Amino acid sequence: MKKDESNRGWKHRLHEIIYEADTPAGKFFDILLFILILVSVVLVMLESVKEIDIKYHNILLVCEWIVTIFFTIEYIARIIAVKKPWKYIFSFYGVIDFLSTIPLYVSYLFAGSQVLLAFRAFRLLRIFRILKLVKYIGEASQLRAALIASRTKIAVFIYVVLILSVIMGTIMYLIESDEAGFTSIPRSIYWTIVTLTTVGYGDIAPQTNLGQFIATVIMILGYGIIAVPTGIVTVEFSRAGKDQLNKRTPGFVHTNTQACPSCASEGHRDDATHCYSCGDAL
Amino acid sequence: MKKDESNRGWKHRLHEIIYEADTPAGKFFDILLFILILVSVVLVMLESVKEIDIKYHNILLVCEWIVTIFFTIEYIARIIAVKKPWKYIFSFYGVIDFLSTIPLYVSYLFAGSQVLLAFRAFRLLRIFRILKLVKYIGEASQLRAALIASRTKIAVFIYVVLILSVIMGTIMYLIESDEAGFTSIPRSIYWTIVTLTTVGYGDIAPQTNLGQFIATVIMILGYGIIAVPTGIVTVEFSRAGKDQLNKRTPGFVHTNTQACPSCASEGHRDDATHCYSCGDAL
Amino acid sequence: MKKDESNRGWKHRLHEIIYEADTPAGKFFDILLFILILVSVVLVMLESVKEIDIKYHNILLVCEWIVTIFFTIEYIARIIAVKKPWKYIFSFYGVIDFLSTIPLYVSYLFAGSQVLLAFRAFRLLRIFRILKLVKYIGEASQLRAALIASRTKIAVFIYVVLILSVIMGTIMYLIESDEAGFTSIPRSIYWTIVTLTTVGYGDIAPQTNLGQFIATVIMILGYGIIAVPTGIVTVEFSRAGKDQLNKRTPGFVHTNTQACPSCASEGHRDDATHCYSCGDAL
Amino acid sequence: MKKDESNRGWKHRLHEIIYEADTPAGKFFDILLFILILVSVVLVMLESVKEIDIKYHNILLVCEWIVTIFFTIEYIARIIAVKKPWKYIFSFYGVIDFLSTIPLYVSYLFAGSQVLLAFRAFRLLRIFRILKLVKYIGEASQLRAALIASRTKIAVFIYVVLILSVIMGTIMYLIESDEAGFTSIPRSIYWTIVTLTTVGYGDIAPQTNLGQFIATVIMILGYGIIAVPTGIVTVEFSRAGKDQLNKRTPGFVHTNTQACPSCASEGHRDDATHCYSCGDAL
Repeated sequence: MKKDESNRGWKHRLHEIIYEADTPAGKFFDILLFILILVSVVLVMLESVKEIDIKYHNILLVCEWIVTIFFTIEYIARIIAVKKPWKYIFSFYGVIDFLSTIPLYVSYLFAGSQVLLAFRAFRLLRIFRILKLVKYIGEASQLRAALIASRTKIAVFIYVVLILSVIMGTIMYLIESDEAGFTSIPRSIYWTIVTLTTVGYGDIAPQTNLGQFIATVIMILGYGIIAVPTGIVTVEFSRAGKDQLNKRTPGFVHTNTQACPSCASEGHRDDATHCYSCGDAL
Repeated sequence: MKKDESNRGWKHRLHEIIYEADTPAGKFFDILLFILILVSVVLVMLESVKEIDIKYHNILLVCEWIVTIFFTIEYIARIIAVKKPWKYIFSFYGVIDFLSTIPLYVSYLFAGSQVLLAFRAFRLLRIFRILKLVKYIGEASQLRAALIASRTKIAVFIYVVLILSVIMGTIMYLIESDEAGFTSIPRSIYWTIVTLTTVGYGDIAPQTNLGQFIATVIMILGYGIIAVPTGIVTVEFSRAGKDQLNKRTPGFVHTNTQACPSCASEGHRDDATHCYSCGDAL
Repeated sequence: MKKDESNRGWKHRLHEIIYEADTPAGKFFDILLFILILVSVVLVMLESVKEIDIKYHNILLVCEWIVTIFFTIEYIARIIAVKKPWKYIFSFYGVIDFLSTIPLYVSYLFAGSQVLLAFRAFRLLRIFRILKLVKYIGEASQLRAALIASRTKIAVFIYVVLILSVIMGTIMYLIESDEAGFTSIPRSIYWTIVTLTTVGYGDIAPQTNLGQFIATVIMILGYGIIAVPTGIVTVEFSRAGKDQLNKRTPGFVHTNTQACPSCASEGHRDDATHCYSCGDAL
Repeated sequence: MKKDESNRGWKHRLHEIIYEADTPAGKFFDILLFILILVSVVLVMLESVKEIDIKYHNILLVCEWIVTIFFTIEYIARIIAVKKPWKYIFSFYGVIDFLSTIPLYVSYLFAGSQVLLAFRAFRLLRIFRILKLVKYIGEASQLRAALIASRTKIAVFIYVVLILSVIMGTIMYLIESDEAGFTSIPRSIYWTIVTLTTVGYGDIAPQTNLGQFIATVIMILGYGIIAVPTGIVTVEFSRAGKDQLNKRTPGFVHTNTQACPSCASEGHRDDATHCYSCGDAL
């Protein structure tokens, strides 16, 4: 029984260090982790620059191994420290942590495993935890709330924009010649979206007078259409902001950086005694 | 008399399947139709890619025939199921359905009939019916209401932008040489709109110092002008949103996906007993 | 005395036809004038297209002469019909009318007189009068009111953007080489504004890593900065809209298309008995 | 004692001329200074244009010396006129004034000192003082207040955009070939930001079908994302505007152009008797 308690003791302590940022050790761990995540992302970038990779290949590989080993230990520790490991493993951060750890191991098995390196950047989202500023989390959740509230409107809007792009792309394909770059309908639709979103690369550009006239119409449409998502989001922000002013608003409560010792879910209320996700005591 | 009743019976049933999405058969028909519309649009795209068209020409043609035959049957069924067929035939969806069906037939008569293929994309708008989510229809109608309310303001705005483009285009034509791409006033106006809407292809770009200075002025103008439609739409959204909060707002009622058995018009109120368009009982 | 009266009579009638759009003759004149303005603008465009100018040079010249003669007669009639001609001659529309009329005459004297052709486009602004829709004038004046109200804010904003462009342009000139297109500071400033306004031609683009990094910073800045004018104008629109809802708002009264018989100024209140500009009876 | 008083007298007078704009001499000094700042910025630009620099090198150098000597005198006078010189020297304007003065001196010592010329443009910000329009300062401070209020939201937003750019850039690097311009991950990230902000140079553009598809997704994302900062700033403007309407708002008071004779800090309240920064009597 004593063993069980001491066992629970070091697990509890591990949990505090890894998942929380209230103790000095927890804060130190979080900052160290963030620096290593940053280093891992920079490593991926440097390896992709040919001149640097040729010159410093061995140094980069050693750094990559150090990061990978730390990530491996951290990943295993996270699983051990949580009571219900599967909840963590299949959570958003659990999957990201796994995919950020394995690329180096997998690279010895498969050639195309570098794709997984892109997932490392997702780990940078942990900064919001590390900053440990409830303010930032509040702002982020307010942004998210406004975006979620305008979700259906934006979905309808994007769908209509896509249909418009297909129609306009087909028309442009029929008008413009292959020389101008409109070699197929998918490519013409690509051009239409490039124009409608006012990106305008110029790799494909209309040459005929009729094509240029329709391009003009698409541009003015795009110029006007951009007003729609802006209008939607602004109105939602305005509402979300007003809600926040009323302190007793049901939708918004203060949350802290505490993580559930069972399932590692975050964003608990300040006065919470049980996890909102698995029901275990905090 | 009995025959007439049974006749009305199967017509009524056909109407329910084709025009409504409340029964399982109606829902199945709508989903099947949407998949076929998607397939028809993808077919048009694939045919335009030369390499694919050469390799799989026969398969594509067979698929195209299957889609066309289904569309033909559906079009005829729609006419039969409605009491007042002409109302459907000359409605927005009626014209789109017709133009989406005929391209393959017409291609044996005229060469340039592929233009009609672009109309198929319009059929994708039916998804709002199929999703059968009053919420989506509500959002779409709110978007439309805000756009309609800001119609005159946007018309005034676009007209002023066009006059500005003509003036600026003429000035740039006089300043810049042919080598820079400003070969005629229409082309210079095209460039002005490309610049004013911040698309910026770069196929035509000013070379002289004076031309670049005026281009700078146009860009900053365009940068500021984009604020105008955004401001208009945002204010209208804000109003539309406030209206919606008041439940007894006269302009907004809940509508369902039921279609009039006589004229096939949609968007009836939940408590409607007669069609708002032709007056027949629903 | 009788002669003076009849004199005043036809002058009054001429004034009604030319300056107002309430009588059938006035309306007909306005529509005819608008069509001729449109034709004159299209003529300028067509003349600039080399192939068309070579083929149809004589036809275009004849049309140009017809338009010019009509414009000349109209301009003289406008001066005669107004009691205080100088007020009209030096008004915005008076100057535009003069500059739109003379290019053909001046082209026999000076070579570079085509510049004046650009002023014709300004005449298209008369459409707001012709449409004679108080609604449109109301919308336009509401737009104008919002823009005027946000004038100082936008001036401050543009000034700060320009200073930023000069600083960033100088830095980019020092970093990037001549080969990339950054041949002088003015040209680098031009590139900075092209980037900051998200136009992005691509005729000048950074090549070095440091240059690309700074370009990235400028882009994200520009992306964020665009929010500022939008925010300003939206808030002003919102206010202007609220003002309009209160019918007794001091700043907004209904105006009509009547023009002062003395000085031809427009936009009189519905209940006005004297011109707000020269004090003569309407 | 008399000497001390007269000493204090001319120092006080110098302070009035240099730091304030209420007396005619102060106003004249401010306008002269602004013209010289403008001249200094134009000189830097002209020197960078090779053709002009070759032709008028000596004239430009003389002008540069005149400006530099005036700036030097002004800088020394500013230090003398203030009671606590160190506060001025290490203030924002103090550093800018110093960096704007030294480039010509330093150019005889180091080659790369032209970088300092970019700081001259910052001096143009003094115009807000010279215009001496409390209105402009009010507008500027309102703009600043709105931007400061939305600071955390915008920081969260930019951070998320950067993570997204790293992820998308890595994916595009893996998909696209070197020929299309995606030679390394940093360069792919640069392309992603160029696309996401709708700048779209076109120097790097996807060639493969998959790459173009992902580019399309990035564009539509960027098109939607631009709504977020706009929404944030608009809501903050709206609030700042409402605050200003309440005359007794605690956050906003009228300020004048008076500068503290001890530490040269600006923006004192109209009714202030002591400096808010160093506590000395004004």
